[in-house]
Amino acid sequence: MTPLERQGMAAKAAAYVLATAGTEPKNYALEAISSLLLQRQGDWLEANAQDLARAQAQGMRPALLDRLALTPERIAAIASSVRQVEALPDPTGRSTHTETRPNGLVISRRTVPLGVVAIIYEARPNVTVDAAVLCLKSGNACILRGGKEAIRSNQAVVEIMREALEETGLPADCVSLVQDTSRESASELMHLDQYVDVLIPRGGPGLIRTVAKEASVPVIRTGEGVCHVYIDREADPDMGAKILCNAKCSRPSVCNATECVLVHREIAGTFWPKALPLLEKYRTELRCDAPSLALLDGWGGIPAQEEDWDTEYGDCTLAVRMVDSTEEAIRFINAHGTGHSECIVTNNYFTAQRFLNEVDAAAVYVNASTRFTDGGEFGLGAEIGISTQKLHARGPMGLGELTSWKYVVYGEGQIRN
Amino acid sequence: MTPLERQGMAAKAAAYVLATAGTEPKNYALEAISSLLLQRQGDWLEANAQDLARAQAQGMRPALLDRLALTPERIAAIASSVRQVEALPDPTGRSTHTETRPNGLVISRRTVPLGVVAIIYEARPNVTVDAAVLCLKSGNACILRGGKEAIRSNQAVVEIMREALEETGLPADCVSLVQDTSRESASELMHLDQYVDVLIPRGGPGLIRTVAKEASVPVIRTGEGVCHVYIDREADPDMGAKILCNAKCSRPSVCNATECVLVHREIAGTFWPKALPLLEKYRTELRCDAPSLALLDGWGGIPAQEEDWDTEYGDCTLAVRMVDSTEEAIRFINAHGTGHSECIVTNNYFTAQRFLNEVDAAAVYVNASTRFTDGGEFGLGAEIGISTQKLHARGPMGLGELTSWKYVVYGEGQIRN
Repeated sequence: MTPLERQGMAAKAAAYVLATAGTEPKNYALEAISSLLLQRQGDWLEANAQDLARAQAQGMRPALLDRLALTPERIAAIASSVRQVEALPDPTGRSTHTETRPNGLVISRRTVPLGVVAIIYEARPNVTVDAAVLCLKSGNACILRGGKEAIRSNQAVVEIMREALEETGLPADCVSLVQDTSRESASELMHLDQYVDVLIPRGGPGLIRTVAKEASVPVIRTGEGVCHVYIDREADPDMGAKILCNAKCSRPSVCNATECVLVHREIAGTFWPKALPLLEKYRTELRCDAPSLALLDGWGGIPAQEEDWDTEYGDCTLAVRMVDSTEEAIRFINAHGTGHSECIVTNNYFTAQRFLNEVDAAAVYVNASTRFTDGGEFGLGAEIGISTQKLHARGPMGLGELTSWKYVVYGEGQIRN
Repeated sequence: MTPLERQGMAAKAAAYVLATAGTEPKNYALEAISSLLLQRQGDWLEANAQDLARAQAQGMRPALLDRLALTPERIAAIASSVRQVEALPDPTGRSTHTETRPNGLVISRRTVPLGVVAIIYEARPNVTVDAAVLCLKSGNACILRGGKEAIRSNQAVVEIMREALEETGLPADCVSLVQDTSRESASELMHLDQYVDVLIPRGGPGLIRTVAKEASVPVIRTGEGVCHVYIDREADPDMGAKILCNAKCSRPSVCNATECVLVHREIAGTFWPKALPLLEKYRTELRCDAPSLALLDGWGGIPAQEEDWDTEYGDCTLAVRMVDSTEEAIRFINAHGTGHSECIVTNNYFTAQRFLNEVDAAAVYVNASTRFTDGGEFGLGAEIGISTQKLHARGPMGLGELTSWKYVVYGEGQIRN
């Protein structure tokens, strides 16, 4: 048995205990984690300082260093988010579809944890706590495989969480960290079919695609976001400009940021004078198709390449395209979008309905920024990621999406004819 | 572009039309399919006769020949089952979780079709119609890849269904058949990520495992059934014997048949004299662990091998094991079961509840045969398979399990801070 197989086996055993532990012990554990994170923040900060020093020495970019860095304020925010998850309702143990069948069998469908959830992610140490507590609250054991840049920080915080679990009488193995951060360990985790019930990759598009392609365990693809805003012929140009600027520039590194605007030919002349001043504040680079370029040439537009229609920029770059109809916009979005978040700006009721019905994405918007696709904004309380696949979960994944179900059947000796 | 890529692209385009067609056109299409199946049954029977002749010439076993064979009665039953699916409620277009958020956004979660469902299956031509109509009713286009033994039958019936679709104004490409029945075509289908939203393998454990391992498209594993009956110390021996015999022998080839009985040591002496006469009627072969063998030696028991504890026999063979406690039974089931259907026979309330809570399977039973795990028996109306995974769907998959959801968001110009 390899170390990872042993870890998988231990996680599975812990998952069985956790699945039937009930809500109170899980909440006690979350409370203990929150307290111990604050009490022992010195250990976590010290480990993080080691990660930061090494990363700096290796020339990590300032933006990435900032994502890796912990501060007492950040730890306080993380500890408080653990309490928020504690306050959410337990998603397991809910019975639906309860029915007495003609033969007297009483059948109901009961929500249960998935079992063992594995998460492969990159350099943000807050994800370690986020993911672990969402899994715990939903009754799942988790195997965390973070990036090598954050290994010390992750080791320290996982140690704290395991201690808190033991303190409250739950198995420490409900939360464990893959100590080996090589590619091989990630690959082995993707094939740990016997122990892993679902694998959620969190990170850049490269990571997601590799995992989806390579893994034999069930995977939920998250966070691939080539999102669009479509400015309809009957849009309010001011509203369209504000929504587009928010969707593109308010936080361009996240997956619900928009990458491409489609503008109806008949409104382009009135829309762009409203939008350009807003986008210029963020020095937005406009990559335009030929008809848009003719309009925006003097305004810093440059020609788009074919790959621009499928690129998640992650910065203030915007692909710009002119369309002749709502139908063309919908077709383009369904061909080039990643099924994340798509928006139409329009005053026309029927155009809006058509867009909502025909666009194939996790979240479809009329007259609102794509940036709202988020577990907190959608009222799910917290999220472990935003699914861009249709299987199991779509859009923000809250606690409910970390469950499965079982059919519970009460009989009195029934046999089948 | 390969022929299969073209087929995938056509299916995707058809899926977009079907997804927004509404319930009535879908029902008209099902009605037309049912009628045309009867009208044109001559074509279907003729094609089937060709498949049968070839299979016979190649020495196919009688049991398999019977599964391949169509008769006017079987076709009438199939046509009538199409009408039954027509009568079921449309699972799409249902909004849940509707909420007005503090910022005024109105958000709801709406059920939508999955898109393109691919199904790889073996030699039963009735599956072709079953799968197609369940997909149609739930708004999904389907790509069917049946076995080479049934290719003529499948070609004939898919032609009939496509004609019926066109008659009612829906795209024929909502239903299509993979004409090439080579291994390569199956493999290509498993990697058609751009067009296939979910792949459901239906068939033997070998097929299921290969698909789960090889596919890069999302897969739902179905129908792997190593199921157990546990006869508790406090069981009614008569009830236990009847349930076991039904679970094992009433239809041993199906996935909800039981493969292994666990008998509590303290009841073995009273249970077996009740069970043996029932099992003997079916000439059941008993493969026993050492303590059970000591009891059953004179009754035709033979020693079990290690692999017997993980084998889906598909015939009247039964693995037999003695256990000392409910805990041991639960641990054994969670280690050796495939997560399909598991049963306890007991009169003790707390033992029953413990078993229901702790056994990790799609369906858990007290005092009833595992053979009830079935979409019809569970009141789902019809099923496309029985999922043994936890992701997306677990247990019998009805129309509801052939849907995903999208979040529909109505705004008035909201942007995110």
